[in-house]
Amino acid sequence: MISKNELKYIQSLYHKKTRDKEKVFIVEGPKMVAELLQSKFRPLKIWTSKEDWIQKYPSAPVELITPEELERASHLKTAHEILAMAAMPTPQKLPVTNDKLILALDGIRDPGNMGTLIRIADWFGVDAIVASEDSADIFNPKVVQATMGSLFRLPVYFTNLKTYLSRSQTTVYGALLDGTPLGSFPLPIPFKEGVLLIGNESTGIREEILPHITQAIKIPAFGQAESLNAAIAAAVLLGHLKIPATV
Amino acid sequence: MISKNELKYIQSLYHKKTRDKEKVFIVEGPKMVAELLQSKFRPLKIWTSKEDWIQKYPSAPVELITPEELERASHLKTAHEILAMAAMPTPQKLPVTNDKLILALDGIRDPGNMGTLIRIADWFGVDAIVASEDSADIFNPKVVQATMGSLFRLPVYFTNLKTYLSRSQTTVYGALLDGTPLGSFPLPIPFKEGVLLIGNESTGIREEILPHITQAIKIPAFGQAESLNAAIAAAVLLGHLKIPATV
Repeated sequence: MISKNELKYIQSLYHKKTRDKEKVFIVEGPKMVAELLQSKFRPLKIWTSKEDWIQKYPSAPVELITPEELERASHLKTAHEILAMAAMPTPQKLPVTNDKLILALDGIRDPGNMGTLIRIADWFGVDAIVASEDSADIFNPKVVQATMGSLFRLPVYFTNLKTYLSRSQTTVYGALLDGTPLGSFPLPIPFKEGVLLIGNESTGIREEILPHITQAIKIPAFGQAESLNAAIAAAVLLGHLKIPATV
Repeated sequence: MISKNELKYIQSLYHKKTRDKEKVFIVEGPKMVAELLQSKFRPLKIWTSKEDWIQKYPSAPVELITPEELERASHLKTAHEILAMAAMPTPQKLPVTNDKLILALDGIRDPGNMGTLIRIADWFGVDAIVASEDSADIFNPKVVQATMGSLFRLPVYFTNLKTYLSRSQTTVYGALLDGTPLGSFPLPIPFKEGVLLIGNESTGIREEILPHITQAIKIPAFGQAESLNAAIAAAVLLGHLKIPATV
């Protein structure tokens, strides 16, 4: 059974303010909870409507509840088998940029985009994400779901990007609509270290950050679409920078 | 003013069945309606709550209504200035694959993914999209919005993909999790003709279509994410195939 107080507490965790205070967040669905249990993150309590989770993870704090109780706790349109409460990891020191591949995000506001960016960065072996303080909260349930588990593997830091980039001793590649098109100038590929900087979905990279870009780049357009969404752009750029050419 | 019957008709167009019968669909928001008016598509009637549209497009069938009326007609959470009713184009003959770059989609179900794929294809200069009959309807309002106007430029055909691909005389590159990683074998880049085939978001390319793939490809993984979403994968593949290498 899930108590009234537990239900109230879970609901409160759908608000950033409570999450930040409690350092606790919610993870939903079998895929995401399985990833949580295989990660270094600490599950605090897990509720499921399917008994086999208890046998499968005997050491995890799993409790059996009814589908109706799960439905009440869930923020999804249709609750999906299992819901966990997990502790946020303790913040680590910001990564130095030498020898690392960093994805820097300036004001990514949409939770779906943020989650997808974390998943893409994980796919392409990015070492860490460094995001501006006004970027979407990574423990927002929509972000958590969209990462498809990559949240548990990839470190994400929130900081003053201007200060962070001003101290960087490596190349900062900034995605700008008036940047130099990929393919028209030499680049060290496969790319092993440096910062790839992506800006806000509609306003791009903030003015005050522009001076810290070493090389402005853009994805060449071959058709007539005016722009690509931030996550799509990051994926194409990372693909180009990481996958060796084969002509 | 918007009449009761018009309102009823607009609402009915949010259902595929009526759209297919009437060959009419809805376009919302200033960006999308501006794209519509610059396209070869025929606007049937336009309602706006902002007077300047009438001056700006004197020959377009624009009518001024109140924000409340617009709100009632809209399917968006918050109606956005303008809503248009447009005629679907008459279906064209399927493109032959020689000398063309075709994006083939097998069972893309999510409207957001479908719209994003159309936008990506437009960006990368794809000549046409050929989609299996069970793919998401491109006149679904969510698809229309997600294309950001590319819907009005890029031809999209629905057909039996198996038959279409079996008649193809060009290379069919299929995105498969066990394909040959990009970067590990020679490819004609920049890619000018051929078919890039992308499968369903969770089940991939259908079994019966696999024999028609000439070259199975995959995006090499550098980290631990298990997969990329269909639109992201298409963007990375098109980026690799179209952007010349510069080592």
